[in-house]
Amino acid sequence: MSESMEPRRVTVFNVGLEEFARVARTAPNARVHHVDWRPPVDGDPRTSEAVSRLIGDSRIDAANAVALAGFLATDPVVVDVQPARTALERLGDPSTRRLLHAGPPLAWESMCGPMRGALIGAALFERWADTPDSASTLLASGSVAFEPCHHLDAVGPMAGVISPSMPVWVVEDAATGRRSFSNLNEGLGKVLRFGAYDTTVLDRLQWMTDELGPVLSAVLTANGGVALRTIMAQALHMGDEVHNRNAAATGQFLKRLVGPIAESPYPGEVHARVLRFIGANDHFFLNLSMAACKLQLDGASGVAGSSIVTAMARNGVNFGIRVSGLGDTWFEAPASVIEGLYFAGYGPQDATPDLGDSSITETAGLGGFAMAAAPAIVGFVGGTVADALNYTTRMRQITVSENPTFTIPSLGFQNTCLGIDIRLVADTGILPVINTGIAHRDAGIGQIGAGITSAPFACFAQASRALGDRFSNPFSNPLSER
Amino acid sequence: MSESMEPRRVTVFNVGLEEFARVARTAPNARVHHVDWRPPVDGDPRTSEAVSRLIGDSRIDAANAVALAGFLATDPVVVDVQPARTALERLGDPSTRRLLHAGPPLAWESMCGPMRGALIGAALFERWADTPDSASTLLASGSVAFEPCHHLDAVGPMAGVISPSMPVWVVEDAATGRRSFSNLNEGLGKVLRFGAYDTTVLDRLQWMTDELGPVLSAVLTANGGVALRTIMAQALHMGDEVHNRNAAATGQFLKRLVGPIAESPYPGEVHARVLRFIGANDHFFLNLSMAACKLQLDGASGVAGSSIVTAMARNGVNFGIRVSGLGDTWFEAPASVIEGLYFAGYGPQDATPDLGDSSITETAGLGGFAMAAAPAIVGFVGGTVADALNYTTRMRQITVSENPTFTIPSLGFQNTCLGIDIRLVADTGILPVINTGIAHRDAGIGQIGAGITSAPFACFAQASRALGDRFSNPFSNPLSER
Repeated sequence: MSESMEPRRVTVFNVGLEEFARVARTAPNARVHHVDWRPPVDGDPRTSEAVSRLIGDSRIDAANAVALAGFLATDPVVVDVQPARTALERLGDPSTRRLLHAGPPLAWESMCGPMRGALIGAALFERWADTPDSASTLLASGSVAFEPCHHLDAVGPMAGVISPSMPVWVVEDAATGRRSFSNLNEGLGKVLRFGAYDTTVLDRLQWMTDELGPVLSAVLTANGGVALRTIMAQALHMGDEVHNRNAAATGQFLKRLVGPIAESPYPGEVHARVLRFIGANDHFFLNLSMAACKLQLDGASGVAGSSIVTAMARNGVNFGIRVSGLGDTWFEAPASVIEGLYFAGYGPQDATPDLGDSSITETAGLGGFAMAAAPAIVGFVGGTVADALNYTTRMRQITVSENPTFTIPSLGFQNTCLGIDIRLVADTGILPVINTGIAHRDAGIGQIGAGITSAPFACFAQASRALGDRFSNPFSNPLSER
Repeated sequence: MSESMEPRRVTVFNVGLEEFARVARTAPNARVHHVDWRPPVDGDPRTSEAVSRLIGDSRIDAANAVALAGFLATDPVVVDVQPARTALERLGDPSTRRLLHAGPPLAWESMCGPMRGALIGAALFERWADTPDSASTLLASGSVAFEPCHHLDAVGPMAGVISPSMPVWVVEDAATGRRSFSNLNEGLGKVLRFGAYDTTVLDRLQWMTDELGPVLSAVLTANGGVALRTIMAQALHMGDEVHNRNAAATGQFLKRLVGPIAESPYPGEVHARVLRFIGANDHFFLNLSMAACKLQLDGASGVAGSSIVTAMARNGVNFGIRVSGLGDTWFEAPASVIEGLYFAGYGPQDATPDLGDSSITETAGLGGFAMAAAPAIVGFVGGTVADALNYTTRMRQITVSENPTFTIPSLGFQNTCLGIDIRLVADTGILPVINTGIAHRDAGIGQIGAGITSAPFACFAQASRALGDRFSNPFSNPLSER
């Protein structure tokens, strides 16, 4: 092209594989519009056959309505903080050393760095070992049982490691007495959930066990607990999506607790430490948001015939989902590496794949699904404000209902969407979007960024085939069990 | 129209007087688009002559740049809470009983109900009278001086009454030592600023004087104060416009104070009362937001030749503005009645016209000017989310700059606008928008709604003529004074 020529403008519409769009964007003067689309289903004829049959089945729609009614009838209230061994029965069993972790089940040999680091930290914290090496040997020996948090009605962000001595939130639905649990958020920096286990981490956990937990327990039990949905609804009007932004939710929670904490029967310096700790950690509410979502989704689970997703969780190696009508089965696929904003000096090559139970918020229609409520989050996870609005709008295509409790001001007070339907994901190829922190692949380094990822298609394809099998087996009634 | 006929659709474009649009909207099947426009200037040839001359004068542009540099160089930090008589010199003069009020100056005979009520409350609080009747007689006698808050570098929401014994926030710019002041927010319900003066109001003021003020003073002076711009910037990302929504700002402020309050040398029950009071009042930060805006706008004032508005304030009868290049003169016009959402049982006929110094936030480019940051506010002040975005976008037409400190996520992190130019208001007829609470016209009833109003055109026309006079007088140099 000669210098005197005007650069020729080229407009490219790219549909499907984004890699072509990336190449096209490197051309000068090219305007590239990328349409994120993939072929419906996965090319496996069994999947497409199952999905097309399930989509027209009104029995599934009816089961989904039952499941979502169970979700909405659940009113999560945080009522106590207890030692995990008290709150979670199987952790209290003195005959077995047991540790909980995020995501679907996984053996020690397969675990990612941060999860191994967090388990080493937990073993040191429980004084089952004196050094990281001896802890590692112990954990590899098979004498400590590992179990997903989800199997004990609990959830934990990132590595999600819970050991018997740690304090956990107790969230309850008064009408049914059902409970969910989560560990307490440690703040940012070197923390167990990113696989760090040095003395600052263990000392902080000890303080949380000895002082923070008991104070919060005293305050919550003396005051009848704190209803979580109200705070979450307020926070959605205050720029949080209650997954990666919890600044407003933490503030609203703190406003309710400041008086009771200051009145609790502890010395003033204890009050000050507890209040400072909560006030200095904008993520403090995250674990409560997660436990609230978990309790509501458990209210939607176990409805025979329902195609609603009741859990999405990652262990840093695999991504797993559970479906209301498919019992406790995990449908798994490899976890993705996250596109996002990396802290200086780090990149995707340093990252652990998608990790943590915190995608329970997206499963409940919050987090990435409610990004339109939190436009400022794009400074943390990347993208533009328009992207944030688009994610929320897009997720309505794979959900079957709305949550009347929660509205998003910037979308004209539209309700948040609710009820991911495996049929719709498998049929449209639109994947659930997830906001998430990014952990370094090695234990102990911590968070190296934050970004946006999506649930793998294969989980939804497998689950659709499994649900299809139930409905196609002439000898079983898919609706007979609950 | 016969039943079998399709209703005929009529589309109406209405330009100018909104009343026509209101009538048109009552017609069935009419789609009415209203364009809010009024003839530039006010039909007074002196105004149009002055404005057209001023608009082309680059000396004014240069003066405005100096004024806004003074605004942005001001870093408001709340450093103390002091009795008003200590902080505000003229209130400490024992030879004169003096009370401050919102808006431009006004005599007792002209005052609206809530302002009289608040002054009666202040006289009772100061024990200058024993009964409301004797207080009223005293205040009408001329033996108590009334003065605008603004004349003592202070601001107060609604009636804005400050008496010598009340505690006030002390906000300081460290570089210059300049200070601004505001009273402390009492919360909602029966409160002095809406003209209530029963014993609950006076008892609360006494507690604020005896306990809240001293605790906050101890905490702020021991900790070097709290920078207000950071909190305001965070709050704009959390759904506040820091005028009628301060829920996030109050939470962020409280997060910083919880530790220091709990550590302050007072008994635990004092800590609890103080923390509960702040935590239960989502408007607590309002008065700090106002004082921060006031201090920054004072940094923009007194620049000869500048057409930037440095104050907009209302006393329930008149609306007044001050302009940087026009000294301390108030340019006044009758205050408007507010369109808005009235509480059940009340309507515009019950309302006091526009009242309070809180429009200092709009003068600084926040409040109504930043409504796009606070979409949820439309549930409180009325209108739609689209209206909120439009107000913010529209105000860019009457402002000359942007505030680099503050961004609005929903507008792609656009900076808030800054610097209302009287020339642009007078030339375009676009009026500064103001979010505001609505007080009952009678003293003591309190808030009856909230809504949106605008500054009267006449203030800007008068100020433009006055600035025009300075520039047209061949014997004066408009730039010689500061």
